[in-house]
Amino acid sequence: MLINVPETVVADALRGLAAAHPELTVDVERRVVVRRDAPVAGKVALVSGGGSGHEPLHAGFVGPGMLDAACPGEVFTSPVPDQMVRAAAAVDSGAGVLFVVKNYTGDVLNFEMAAELAEDEGVRVAKVLVDDDVAVTDSLYTAGRRGTGATLFVEKLAGAAAEEGAPLERVEAVARRVVERSRSFGVALSACSTPAKGGPTFDLPPGELEFGVGIHGEPGRERRAMMTSGEIAEAAVDAVLDDLRPADPVLLLVNGMGGTPLLELYGFNAEVRRVLAERRVPVARTLVGNYVTSLDMAGASVTLCAADEELLRLWDAPVRTPALRWGR
Amino acid sequence: MLINVPETVVADALRGLAAAHPELTVDVERRVVVRRDAPVAGKVALVSGGGSGHEPLHAGFVGPGMLDAACPGEVFTSPVPDQMVRAAAAVDSGAGVLFVVKNYTGDVLNFEMAAELAEDEGVRVAKVLVDDDVAVTDSLYTAGRRGTGATLFVEKLAGAAAEEGAPLERVEAVARRVVERSRSFGVALSACSTPAKGGPTFDLPPGELEFGVGIHGEPGRERRAMMTSGEIAEAAVDAVLDDLRPADPVLLLVNGMGGTPLLELYGFNAEVRRVLAERRVPVARTLVGNYVTSLDMAGASVTLCAADEELLRLWDAPVRTPALRWGR
Repeated sequence: MLINVPETVVADALRGLAAAHPELTVDVERRVVVRRDAPVAGKVALVSGGGSGHEPLHAGFVGPGMLDAACPGEVFTSPVPDQMVRAAAAVDSGAGVLFVVKNYTGDVLNFEMAAELAEDEGVRVAKVLVDDDVAVTDSLYTAGRRGTGATLFVEKLAGAAAEEGAPLERVEAVARRVVERSRSFGVALSACSTPAKGGPTFDLPPGELEFGVGIHGEPGRERRAMMTSGEIAEAAVDAVLDDLRPADPVLLLVNGMGGTPLLELYGFNAEVRRVLAERRVPVARTLVGNYVTSLDMAGASVTLCAADEELLRLWDAPVRTPALRWGR
Repeated sequence: MLINVPETVVADALRGLAAAHPELTVDVERRVVVRRDAPVAGKVALVSGGGSGHEPLHAGFVGPGMLDAACPGEVFTSPVPDQMVRAAAAVDSGAGVLFVVKNYTGDVLNFEMAAELAEDEGVRVAKVLVDDDVAVTDSLYTAGRRGTGATLFVEKLAGAAAEEGAPLERVEAVARRVVERSRSFGVALSACSTPAKGGPTFDLPPGELEFGVGIHGEPGRERRAMMTSGEIAEAAVDAVLDDLRPADPVLLLVNGMGGTPLLELYGFNAEVRRVLAERRVPVARTLVGNYVTSLDMAGASVTLCAADEELLRLWDAPVRTPALRWGR
């Protein structure tokens, strides 16, 4: 691995993030990443966070049109409430703060506690829980469905609503609508390696894939013999459509888990689009890339969000973050 | 691998690229990717290309402010002259075309032949050869230095000059200046796997690194025992500075080879910045990410470009491509 020692991986990455992105304020010691112009007068602020190892999620999504702050934990470990309280205090303009929380037990508990502490300090806090992964209900880390790729949609769309000046209740409502309308399914073709372990975190023999994998390499539905890109696309899209029958054109995220080359991801996107066309699901917008990752894990996930007119407009709204950037 | 069969990998990726990016015109059969509004009246056009497997290079850099067209070859194999001639004809507005060529023997010969054929058809063609990699002079694929990370700088900066309306001679001069002022050095921590081979293309035992690796996994200067991120940063930066002593603040590209997580790349950036500060080299702008890749190879490269005032202005100019996007 390209690291110094496992103990400094997150701090080293935050120092590097600060050096590359002067438009962010990075508190390396306390592990809070904030857009430099926060708090933005009158604007609802979005705060998210979670274990490190999923980059660019979340710190790479901090900036105008998306998150106001991110709190990175240790690798695959929830951040602590103190980080979230600090972040909320740093970005609250008085208009309130929305916590975007992926559905993992540690994250849920810590954001819950942070919300109480922040409210004690006079910050109005709303929370939205992202639980889009249809692979499993209840697992090692989660009660209910896991939060994965849809987190990007929630942060972009609710972030755009906040940037437009929507009040807290409205930003929260947009976030909830995105959660309700989004589902994901992923596969792993190799295990990921954490710095602490120094090697693969689970055993996945060549020629097999983990079908329905989570973003920590946690088990999915089953082990399967290797499938073609087209077969994986059919299985993944159908798993999503079993749970979400979109009445609107979808936003499509074809997401790499970190170790899959873009060449393969774009080829996978071709197959996903073929299957969606066969199932008569129109695609309004597509994003292809490594956005919600599991360190160096090979594999990919498909996330669909049934986008009504407003969500489509919010998707197209300008965004200026390290990892997602378009418009003005 | 997330593929159907090795034979269709490039065509599948181009179908997926077309589906995700309606702002590009993709000729899947003839393997030419063109910005949809080409030819742009009065504008010099930039055409590049090379073997596939380095994505987002080059097709991910097609769009306003960067390339007008890209010609992807088979994986790690030069595109053919016919692709380049077709691309030149599609994007030439009459103001001429600049071919941006990485210094590999196959690419050089085929772009040379394409230039002659295009000129026979009345297209004015200039060429610039990118040869930034200080690791080796002469190698398996190259006479002289190899072309790697600096290709991004050449395409961005000359592309911005062309977008501003500079004539062919001027765009070519900018490109040459960028080449003269740019140097790179890379390391591999794992081999890459090509679809045709179905596994690693060379043997790199865990605990060793290829020091001075090329973007096809070709050998570098030597095998070394694993080093820390800080040690690699020192060795890479010093290798670059041995060959290029910047009199101006630099543009810095901390580039992942495809299989290295962003978490590690940002940590590596922190170390690169530390070393540059110790060597008293000021950094004007930084880009961190997987941009000039070798499929799933783990590793990273450092590219410096000594940027004068004009190059800095051209770097900041708007760009709108799948992989690089900022400004208006």
